[in-house]
Amino acid sequence: MPDIFREVDNCVTAPQGFRAGVTASGIKADATIKDLAILASEVPCVTAGTFTTSSTRAAPVIVCQERLKSGRAQAVIVNSGNANCATGEIGMQNAYRMTGYVAKRFHMHEALILCSSTGIIGRQLPIEKIAAGVEAIELSADQGNAFSEAILTTDTHPKRMALEFQIEGHTIRLAGVTKGAGMIYPNMATMLSYLTTDAAIELDWMRGELQAAVAESFNIMAVDGDMSTNDTCILFANGLAGNTPINAHHPYAGTFREALRRVTQYLAREMARDGEGATKLMTVHVQGAQNKADAIKAARAITLSPLWQCALAGGDPNWGRIVAALGACGCKLDQSNYDIFIGDVQILKQGLAAQYDQQDARSAMAGNEVTIAVDLHLGDGKATAWGCDLTHGYIDENTLYTR
Amino acid sequence: MPDIFREVDNCVTAPQGFRAGVTASGIKADATIKDLAILASEVPCVTAGTFTTSSTRAAPVIVCQERLKSGRAQAVIVNSGNANCATGEIGMQNAYRMTGYVAKRFHMHEALILCSSTGIIGRQLPIEKIAAGVEAIELSADQGNAFSEAILTTDTHPKRMALEFQIEGHTIRLAGVTKGAGMIYPNMATMLSYLTTDAAIELDWMRGELQAAVAESFNIMAVDGDMSTNDTCILFANGLAGNTPINAHHPYAGTFREALRRVTQYLAREMARDGEGATKLMTVHVQGAQNKADAIKAARAITLSPLWQCALAGGDPNWGRIVAALGACGCKLDQSNYDIFIGDVQILKQGLAAQYDQQDARSAMAGNEVTIAVDLHLGDGKATAWGCDLTHGYIDENTLYTR
Repeated sequence: MPDIFREVDNCVTAPQGFRAGVTASGIKADATIKDLAILASEVPCVTAGTFTTSSTRAAPVIVCQERLKSGRAQAVIVNSGNANCATGEIGMQNAYRMTGYVAKRFHMHEALILCSSTGIIGRQLPIEKIAAGVEAIELSADQGNAFSEAILTTDTHPKRMALEFQIEGHTIRLAGVTKGAGMIYPNMATMLSYLTTDAAIELDWMRGELQAAVAESFNIMAVDGDMSTNDTCILFANGLAGNTPINAHHPYAGTFREALRRVTQYLAREMARDGEGATKLMTVHVQGAQNKADAIKAARAITLSPLWQCALAGGDPNWGRIVAALGACGCKLDQSNYDIFIGDVQILKQGLAAQYDQQDARSAMAGNEVTIAVDLHLGDGKATAWGCDLTHGYIDENTLYTR
Repeated sequence: MPDIFREVDNCVTAPQGFRAGVTASGIKADATIKDLAILASEVPCVTAGTFTTSSTRAAPVIVCQERLKSGRAQAVIVNSGNANCATGEIGMQNAYRMTGYVAKRFHMHEALILCSSTGIIGRQLPIEKIAAGVEAIELSADQGNAFSEAILTTDTHPKRMALEFQIEGHTIRLAGVTKGAGMIYPNMATMLSYLTTDAAIELDWMRGELQAAVAESFNIMAVDGDMSTNDTCILFANGLAGNTPINAHHPYAGTFREALRRVTQYLAREMARDGEGATKLMTVHVQGAQNKADAIKAARAITLSPLWQCALAGGDPNWGRIVAALGACGCKLDQSNYDIFIGDVQILKQGLAAQYDQQDARSAMAGNEVTIAVDLHLGDGKATAWGCDLTHGYIDENTLYTR
């Protein structure tokens, strides 16, 4: 069967009617780095978002949550270098100001502008630099890739994807970008992610679909177990493709859902691969769990074990650490009947060390992508989670960040 | 007021009637390392234990839990180098065999012998080496310190304490040893710990007191968030001091409780200080929490944030990571009214960056003991947790462990 999804360029500006622009506003110490970006649609969009569940969430998150009650938005302004978190009333005012600058410059309704910030916590935004930066930004349809670069902090490369597919003879595009790297334990997303589509979609259905897609992508990957104060994932749908609005009963609902899964899971996986200091991507498949929640618990526990992350870094098939992580995670487990594989090598069979060649196990750990599979033989719950190894690089990036 | 507790030597063999012995049995690759140890009382003891809550708990844990239903035991045999975990029926048989060797050699009832194992998961015990090792062990009252050394794995030094105090004119001793280092996220204890006393104590009261003491010591310290399959804490009370048995109504119940807190908290703190690769001990005090559970949640969350652990290693007062950890932990928190101190330096006041000298903050992070204090201003819940920094040393110790 041919793939109905085709990759296209320009990520978030690939769908019709989306534009982006970036500038080096001087928020970051190195004034040549692009640290301010705007993503906008020509027309207001049906818009849904999911956000950090942290009780110390940042000012821009509060602004987004408030404004997205309407389910409509047209643009988002994003700065890196400063998280605008633990900044109190002034921080809230600055978040609103950022959106006001965009509204004024591009003649939009301020209530339709969202904002995000990422970077150091506890410092006030240099709001004049942002004001000047917005003035300097020009929006265009070929700046999607530039947008994906300007939102980065310690990421080594941008993460982006755009898919094209057909719905009722209309060409639809769905695209996404994300930034990740550290403080990555999404619940929701521990990152910033922006998704755009020119499909017409009904709000209620889209909200549910975004939440479900995030649950199986951003919320099931982890770098370090630290949940951020600024996690944000926003999906803008401007309807310019002209299809009849997608809802649960739409014949192509499944097609859009599949596209959304592809984009979000790709971005989540790339975020794990690009975790701070990471040299290996780990993919953990759990099946046979009592239920879905248990499968998620088990898969995440393995990605989050610092000891197993270290073993992964060393290419050491020290699977006792997987056993320990599974045992501690609280999922139902029968000690005498579960299996673990590293790559194709079965290392645990019915709860006991399997017969395997130690060299095969080392080989399965040697590449830059390592797959762990667990079968709990209890039910039909399954989940896939992504993570990375824990290396000197992570320590180096995080011992001296504020200096 | 003079301290009613006096430190004495010989740790677990300091209380009357306790003896210990150790040997190099060859379980560890380096045959000169002491890896097998026995701790025994001359007479059967009232005995309580707390154990890992892991669902992949090791065979010796299962044996201890089964035998301690009686509340009586006389000895424990401990090996390092092999965890006897994920070892199935053979592992269970080997755990029983270990206790049988001790019973035979020292003429005790086998049902009164406990066992512990620590080390690599998933390999069968070399049971003949243990059999020969038990034959080689001689017990004596001056081997408490040797016992504390033989149970270590990656610890850099033993952790031990013995206190002497008076109850009704009787001299009582209470002592403890522990091993820790990695896979340290006790719930219960993520470690092996043995406590001995010559006090006479009633079983029910002692069980409750041990649980309470563990909750505020071993269960509130962390190195890496990995809970072990072998966590064990056992308190033996042989009654040889001759006091009237202590229970809730005993006039000296509070004195014994205080001694138990001192010993367990000292051991927990030393375990954190000696975490794998650790260069700094972190003590986190939380007060003003809505309740005790929230205070524990908040204190533990800070000790367990890898990003904050890295900042600690670098002496970098990047307190945004404390804000993020607090926000993510699920404790109730008012974003506009909580305070954070590093040492004596208030860095967050009513949820906002306080006025402080950056150099003072750096100085407060510079020593090998760093104290964080959080006031949530919501209630009277408080807790203290211990942790350590995250360094290259941790990575180095854990990337190549099984080789």
